[in-house]
Amino acid sequence: MSHETIDMYDGIISTRAIRRYRYDEPVPDEDLNKMFFAATRAPSGNNSQPFRFIVLRDGPRAKEARALLGVAFRTRWGKKGSDEGYSAAAAASLSPKERMALAMQEFVDNLERAPVVVLPCVMPQRNPGSALLPATELARGASVYPACQNLLLAARALGYGGAMTMWHKPAGALLPAVLGIPEDVTIASTIVLGRPAGRHGPVRRLPIGELVFEDEWGQAAPWAKDPAGTRFAGPRPAPVAATQNAAVQDKG
Amino acid sequence: MSHETIDMYDGIISTRAIRRYRYDEPVPDEDLNKMFFAATRAPSGNNSQPFRFIVLRDGPRAKEARALLGVAFRTRWGKKGSDEGYSAAAAASLSPKERMALAMQEFVDNLERAPVVVLPCVMPQRNPGSALLPATELARGASVYPACQNLLLAARALGYGGAMTMWHKPAGALLPAVLGIPEDVTIASTIVLGRPAGRHGPVRRLPIGELVFEDEWGQAAPWAKDPAGTRFAGPRPAPVAATQNAAVQDKG
Repeated sequence: MSHETIDMYDGIISTRAIRRYRYDEPVPDEDLNKMFFAATRAPSGNNSQPFRFIVLRDGPRAKEARALLGVAFRTRWGKKGSDEGYSAAAAASLSPKERMALAMQEFVDNLERAPVVVLPCVMPQRNPGSALLPATELARGASVYPACQNLLLAARALGYGGAMTMWHKPAGALLPAVLGIPEDVTIASTIVLGRPAGRHGPVRRLPIGELVFEDEWGQAAPWAKDPAGTRFAGPRPAPVAATQNAAVQDKG
Repeated sequence: MSHETIDMYDGIISTRAIRRYRYDEPVPDEDLNKMFFAATRAPSGNNSQPFRFIVLRDGPRAKEARALLGVAFRTRWGKKGSDEGYSAAAAASLSPKERMALAMQEFVDNLERAPVVVLPCVMPQRNPGSALLPATELARGASVYPACQNLLLAARALGYGGAMTMWHKPAGALLPAVLGIPEDVTIASTIVLGRPAGRHGPVRRLPIGELVFEDEWGQAAPWAKDPAGTRFAGPRPAPVAATQNAAVQDKG
């Protein structure tokens, strides 16, 4: 299908996680092909493209894998929801956090019928003259997550939306067993895609001044300023190095 | 500055690594701000944004870090060039591989004066009720490399280009020491940005049918087809699981 033109820059800055879909609208093969063509244009180390995408729709293995992922996601969300007080909040009036909690509950409750579920995988690598790079190391992520981000952005460009999570992890070794994934290959994430059920809403992030340094760690870049009207994320569990970071920033 | 409108989908599929820059054209602060605003809109686990970008231009630490990175890049390229036969090829007529070798040599020879060098970093994380997630694990990459890809795509949208590499690694612990990076923070990559010196050229990748499976590992997705006129990458060192993968594909 053809798609509306979205300006590339505007599209990048306004793409957010979409977790509620129109469940009665399957994604046509042609659009899937376009999304994955875009995903596979991403850069990777040595252009070796050690990523593979497993697309789960309504095939026999897909049904088993989705059922398993549904259990894993609901378990993970139940735990996170109670750990971080989301479930209690969801009963009250609709703050951004509460809206997020409701969307998340709908997300985990409907994984079995989400239009498309994707498992991006990464393979280990042995470059000539180099040691084996196992698929479990941070740096291997540079050869799979750019492709995941391309997939999410291309989905947006074609009128779809999606979310990337790590909530397949509680499924453990059963998920690779269901899908025949070799032992040395790692599932890098789970991406769910479909037509958005609601509006896109604003992307909420930390102030850019906390994220961009110039010349050394902790020294705020004087030119890094959020445009007027930017909406910010609420507090999140602080990364471990945050205190250290704040201490360094004091001198900047 | 204003920018030409590029269609989001077309921009994503045609963004390639740029390694030759106009060295006399610094990137204005306003454009840097726009690029990093886009980078920091990327998704991350729990929206916790554990990534930090250190921008190196002409500050005192930046000069030291660039000198160090120059040595590391040239050492890495020299090793890779001889391991994979690039240097010999570069002496002959201009095949794609030879053009790449020349661009790579220019890239490593000019790191000290490349318009902008960026070190994306990732912090460890402890979510409530979860174990510590060290910054060295694959899954942490889902919270930094999407932001790196946004940076590269936003650069393209604004008329710039860049390349992401892991060639800072030979610099070892000296690089964090120069830049005051805390011990538990990991440098996730090095990204170089600037105005492209040459044309963009085609993105060359593996055939999409090798990269996208449906329903299970190794089963080619029947709808995954490269558009007419797609140009493919030459052979690369095979990922370790490739044989296994091919064996599984035989049944598909």
